[in-house]
Amino acid sequence: MSVHSKLYEGKAKILYTTDDPQVLLADFKDDATAFNAQKRGSIVGKGKINCSISTQLFKQLEEYGIKTHFIDSPSQNQMRVKSVKILPLEVVVRNIAAGSLCQQTGLAVGTVLQQPLVEFYYKNDQLGDPLLTRDRLLLLKLATAEQVDAITNLALQINEFLSGFWQQCSITLVDFKLEFGLDSKQQILLADEISPDTCRLWDSAEADPNRRVMDKDRFRRDLGNVEDAYQEVLQRVLQVVEIKN
Amino acid sequence: MSVHSKLYEGKAKILYTTDDPQVLLADFKDDATAFNAQKRGSIVGKGKINCSISTQLFKQLEEYGIKTHFIDSPSQNQMRVKSVKILPLEVVVRNIAAGSLCQQTGLAVGTVLQQPLVEFYYKNDQLGDPLLTRDRLLLLKLATAEQVDAITNLALQINEFLSGFWQQCSITLVDFKLEFGLDSKQQILLADEISPDTCRLWDSAEADPNRRVMDKDRFRRDLGNVEDAYQEVLQRVLQVVEIKN
Repeated sequence: MSVHSKLYEGKAKILYTTDDPQVLLADFKDDATAFNAQKRGSIVGKGKINCSISTQLFKQLEEYGIKTHFIDSPSQNQMRVKSVKILPLEVVVRNIAAGSLCQQTGLAVGTVLQQPLVEFYYKNDQLGDPLLTRDRLLLLKLATAEQVDAITNLALQINEFLSGFWQQCSITLVDFKLEFGLDSKQQILLADEISPDTCRLWDSAEADPNRRVMDKDRFRRDLGNVEDAYQEVLQRVLQVVEIKN
Repeated sequence: MSVHSKLYEGKAKILYTTDDPQVLLADFKDDATAFNAQKRGSIVGKGKINCSISTQLFKQLEEYGIKTHFIDSPSQNQMRVKSVKILPLEVVVRNIAAGSLCQQTGLAVGTVLQQPLVEFYYKNDQLGDPLLTRDRLLLLKLATAEQVDAITNLALQINEFLSGFWQQCSITLVDFKLEFGLDSKQQILLADEISPDTCRLWDSAEADPNRRVMDKDRFRRDLGNVEDAYQEVLQRVLQVVEIKN
């Protein structure tokens, strides 16, 4: 596979074209950003860790029946993915109240939601990724009503699987962000990554609200031991995958 | 009617109890606030003007079949209203994009919406009156699903009537905010006020984006001639009502 030119550089990944127009190469970076890139830093080894975790989770999800953009991982921090048109939506699934949900509603952090909450945000850095109502999403033509319904169903299925998977890792899946893309046949594929950058993960055996955090909130909130937490998440994922195989 | 004690003082009105427990007296103030009370000022005569406009509009809406909290107006800046439990929701109906909708979505000010947009905000100063998705509204138990549906229908009916009424005044109804309350029988009544404080009103004959503004945006955006604009709105309302009667 010969790698051609840089197609797009995001905050956490660089996408390159390849000799196959249907295939892109994603290069996972160690760069870390938070609060719409107002906070910047680096997490040593993050690129390899997040690529490895995402690889395992995409494989598991494909086996579970979810269509993803994942093809394979030619090296530790690289993933070959199907070329898709990314929908400009951040799809957030919440099982437990945390983050902006708490800031915007006054709900206490840690409130267990009676049922998972699927929320849509406009993936737009200039506007600060604002929350979307269904009507605003449709007004802006960011997706069709049918796509919104299909994505909501997919997000709930993915949550069902991932909640169980993380539980086997002794990790509580608090919330997570997904991105979806359309392939050339307008099929909806799960895209982007699934990692401690995109999930809130709490150590199930730990009650302390700071020590339990195993995700990017360690970086956002300067809790320290960021690399250790990411590494620990990867180890637990690999252990569970090994037991399953 | 003897007036008892002050029940509640809001940004634009004071509510007093009366000798009838089912009846409150609303005293409309000249105080003006904007941006969640970060900007404060006074608009001379606003209390009387807004009370008079609201009185006329509530009467018209009652005739149109909408149940409101309005009883009568014993003096120019006072309104007797039915005592209701106000739902902590700001219900915004939008016909043309303006204000926070534009800031949060990137839509250009003045974009005519294909159909009216009914939005719910959490009436909570501490949280800055955040936008609510339907799921968040239900999660916070701010109203039941049935109440949300009923309020959405009422808001659209009220918009239908008011758009026509303001058009007769040569005023374009851009958007407006409503509040609803529940009476002792759990009936939903339109409450609060309808005035240049709560509606975006553009002079239909004026194309200039600053000169056309006849509402609180003159105060928010320091456009000058605030009192004149409010007075002009009242005069047009009274003229149209007179022709109708």
